[in-house]
Amino acid sequence: MSDPMTLNQRIVLASRPVGAPTPENFRMERVALPDLADGQVLLKTVFLSLDPYMRGRMSDAPSYAAPVEIGEVMTGGAVSRVERSLNPKFQEGDLVVGATGWQSHSINDGRSIIPIPALPSPSMALGVLGMPGMTAYMGLMDIGQPKAGETLVVAAASGAVGSVVGQVAKIKGLRVVGVAGGAEKCRYVVDELGFDACIDHKSPDFADELAQACPKGIDIYYENVGGKVFEAVVPLLNPKARIPLCGLIASYNAHEAPSGPDRLPLLQRTLLTKRVRIQGFIVFDDYGDRQPEFLSAMAPWVRDGKVKFREDVVDGLEQAPDAFIGLLEGRNFGKLVVRVSRD
Amino acid sequence: MSDPMTLNQRIVLASRPVGAPTPENFRMERVALPDLADGQVLLKTVFLSLDPYMRGRMSDAPSYAAPVEIGEVMTGGAVSRVERSLNPKFQEGDLVVGATGWQSHSINDGRSIIPIPALPSPSMALGVLGMPGMTAYMGLMDIGQPKAGETLVVAAASGAVGSVVGQVAKIKGLRVVGVAGGAEKCRYVVDELGFDACIDHKSPDFADELAQACPKGIDIYYENVGGKVFEAVVPLLNPKARIPLCGLIASYNAHEAPSGPDRLPLLQRTLLTKRVRIQGFIVFDDYGDRQPEFLSAMAPWVRDGKVKFREDVVDGLEQAPDAFIGLLEGRNFGKLVVRVSRD
Repeated sequence: MSDPMTLNQRIVLASRPVGAPTPENFRMERVALPDLADGQVLLKTVFLSLDPYMRGRMSDAPSYAAPVEIGEVMTGGAVSRVERSLNPKFQEGDLVVGATGWQSHSINDGRSIIPIPALPSPSMALGVLGMPGMTAYMGLMDIGQPKAGETLVVAAASGAVGSVVGQVAKIKGLRVVGVAGGAEKCRYVVDELGFDACIDHKSPDFADELAQACPKGIDIYYENVGGKVFEAVVPLLNPKARIPLCGLIASYNAHEAPSGPDRLPLLQRTLLTKRVRIQGFIVFDDYGDRQPEFLSAMAPWVRDGKVKFREDVVDGLEQAPDAFIGLLEGRNFGKLVVRVSRD
Repeated sequence: MSDPMTLNQRIVLASRPVGAPTPENFRMERVALPDLADGQVLLKTVFLSLDPYMRGRMSDAPSYAAPVEIGEVMTGGAVSRVERSLNPKFQEGDLVVGATGWQSHSINDGRSIIPIPALPSPSMALGVLGMPGMTAYMGLMDIGQPKAGETLVVAAASGAVGSVVGQVAKIKGLRVVGVAGGAEKCRYVVDELGFDACIDHKSPDFADELAQACPKGIDIYYENVGGKVFEAVVPLLNPKARIPLCGLIASYNAHEAPSGPDRLPLLQRTLLTKRVRIQGFIVFDDYGDRQPEFLSAMAPWVRDGKVKFREDVVDGLEQAPDAFIGLLEGRNFGKLVVRVSRD
């Protein structure tokens, strides 16, 4: 029990944030792990994924998933290595992915983890080939229904989801306009990812610049941020535009309805007069059975360099709270992962 | 030229309404009709359809269709009888339907009118078998994707669209809850149309009563009114709910955004967390090619009494402005048509 190998470092939810999360909402703990039972595996976390949806789990407002309880380990997907196995399906040294949370170790009965194949970096299973990549792909293809020659806009364009949305849309022959925060990210989106344009949402003329970048209007707005980007997009929507809605990071920290005017009737009117389709989705709930289709499309694109990705790697589990707070502010540049262990 | 047969009575747009239309926004005129040219037919209007969408045409705000210009005849669908024909495709006495407007006579080259079959009343071509019926059917079937056992809510439930939506949903095996204004309409919706329940939106406990009528939540909200019905529906939406959006009569008279709070972010959040699909549509733009499918389903239902309808018939073209103003207030009871001539 005092063997350091069985000590688990974990980050629990200390209190619920009101508005933006602060370091005080998290607490690092060290606890001894129980002995393995038959059928169980001991996992050592290698990479922890940090994603915007986690902000929702910190609140107890009604949502599509149960909240993390106070004192519970923060939820999160991770790549882990099997340290010990009493389960015949797993061998020591195997790499697996699963929702094992913000902790250095975990014990699993093998039913909620899946092995991952050899990858240039195992963290890809948390990004371009994992949940964010599949979110990008399914929302774009199933709800967005992209057609060559159309114009697509996506925000957080250098991020885990937006970068994949735009690159897949380019493969499909669309004009692709990204939105990102700051000149460096915008340059990367155009020069490295191959978008046709990228608009800095921090620009004072943001709405005008977006309109100029979309001379034929917008046919698909892949919505992952909400807020002022959505506001600038609405007047540019073409008839029969589609809006896959996978996230609203701009409003995750809001804790009351913004003051008026009430823009709901205007949105409804736009949806009606322009015959717009807007549809929310949760990737594994709605498309869980289509993971093979996703992987068979995405893996070759990634291998051949048609879909590029960038990771923002933070070292050490203890850095997770600060990195996550930064994610909600757009401080990261690329898919944010925490390297929890090096071996 | 002084022959009274060639005098056309017509109602033109005198001025654009600010808020609710008033009688002063309309003007009755009498003008002589020109002689018929080769290929033309002279039509005498029998029934004029009055529909909520016409409020949009009175404004010059951007919309899906061009506005009626000041001094122009008000737009509208009508059933007419062919009075004289210099077009080999039409005979005197034929009944046709077309967007011939708020007037007693019109001249047409035959390309924008279609003959109607023998019907118990020719006004059915403006209601249950016409644009409103097809709006109800296509929005419900294509966007609503009804499944037996689900719960559907539709407002303006005694009206031209809502009554058909609910009855078709009953045929498809859904629990159907209507919303209507006043006890008399609600009784009709339940007793005559066979809805499972109907809630009076004038009740002070409207939202609670709606919730009680939908114990399993709402899977389809067929949106034709907007306003407070939408507001009461949103918290009751089930995951994967669908909202076909064909009209927003509650806000047609609004001329500025209502004061806050801004409910847009809350709606977006609901769409995301409940994975809701909301989609606006304009029936002839989006489904014009599916009219045969609509008629082959609806005509037998109407013939066999499975889909009932009720008309609110107003006599005399000069009554059209007042009847239309009443339509926007919910004063009509059933599909509103104006009997323009009796022969």
